[in-house]
Amino acid sequence: MSKLRLMITMSLGSYVAGPDQSEENPLGVGGMELHQWFFPLKAFREMHGESDGETNASSPVVEERQANIGATIMGRNMFGPVRGPWPDESWRGWWGEDPPYHHPVFVLTHHQREPLEMEGGTSFHFVSSGIESALAQAKDAAGGQDIWLAGGAAVVNQYLAAGLVNEIDISIAPVILSSGARLFDKLEHGALELEQIRAVDAPGVTHIKYKVG
Amino acid sequence: MSKLRLMITMSLGSYVAGPDQSEENPLGVGGMELHQWFFPLKAFREMHGESDGETNASSPVVEERQANIGATIMGRNMFGPVRGPWPDESWRGWWGEDPPYHHPVFVLTHHQREPLEMEGGTSFHFVSSGIESALAQAKDAAGGQDIWLAGGAAVVNQYLAAGLVNEIDISIAPVILSSGARLFDKLEHGALELEQIRAVDAPGVTHIKYKVG
Repeated sequence: MSKLRLMITMSLGSYVAGPDQSEENPLGVGGMELHQWFFPLKAFREMHGESDGETNASSPVVEERQANIGATIMGRNMFGPVRGPWPDESWRGWWGEDPPYHHPVFVLTHHQREPLEMEGGTSFHFVSSGIESALAQAKDAAGGQDIWLAGGAAVVNQYLAAGLVNEIDISIAPVILSSGARLFDKLEHGALELEQIRAVDAPGVTHIKYKVG
Repeated sequence: MSKLRLMITMSLGSYVAGPDQSEENPLGVGGMELHQWFFPLKAFREMHGESDGETNASSPVVEERQANIGATIMGRNMFGPVRGPWPDESWRGWWGEDPPYHHPVFVLTHHQREPLEMEGGTSFHFVSSGIESALAQAKDAAGGQDIWLAGGAAVVNQYLAAGLVNEIDISIAPVILSSGARLFDKLEHGALELEQIRAVDAPGVTHIKYKVG
């Protein structure tokens, strides 16, 4: 059975982005600090064509997260800074022509758009028919593999509230953000039954994995 | 140097209590679930005069938290359900005549009241002159030992915003609370510089310790 796996980094205080997201500041003010633990890793450097980088306690966690993923779901703000109707087809994501997904990515939006075929196996599919439809399409595309629920907070909170997330693997960065996009917001108490699977103490970050009952 | 140490349990989503706190439900709806990891421990059972209980990966964390503490600071809602001016002296805390502190406890309130001498070395001192004054009094009383900042969220957020907290040791429970009292709220980005000291994977909980720079 294909699982929907939330894998994301948040601040101590549950923010996944800072305020004032823009093209210059995709993660909002301070949001980039959340990912400091990831940038020195060999796994990250390799994504960017470099052969250096370190291996530490985060490395097996990253490996585990990347394994058995056949599709990704994300919100539109994670795809780009354009709001409202698409003015044209020029915005093709933050990641250049060879994005680090290498599988189909489903972008939730209220505004329809033709799919984008990128290099390296990544394609972007714009879904305006809601979160359940996006999940069904992602499952079809994943060919039995799991689906990465990547962000942002609004989309994640919708999937959580709908009880559609099977696993949460969250990285908690030693960062305080003042405002922005917050996870685990506006959920009913008892909406989710969580079982802690493991926690990993890594340099500058803690990774906690939960099974959602 | 006497340190102010925040040691508290929060939900995945940063709530330390649920909504609708009352005398029957001191931690609000669902708030008790946060502490499920603590109740089976020998350290908890011993506080309540029992000799049974288990020892697990949380046990050394609890021991470390209890060590070298000479005073506690808490908000008024953590002391009791009475709001507004004290109608009389009858409310003496949630914990009976021998509270599990065994040292002076400073309760922040807008409404003055005479100190309470309890059994077993605990005393409650009501401070209406603000958080800095409470900290100064707690330091005097602690005799060189550290001070436990115990909660609730409003008081903790004030101490964090004022830059007065030296160490954060937070337990994250696999629980979602919908609303209530939230930690790390309304802080300026960059107000706190955190360094992760250690994370402990324990049954049903993760304990993360930060040094505040």
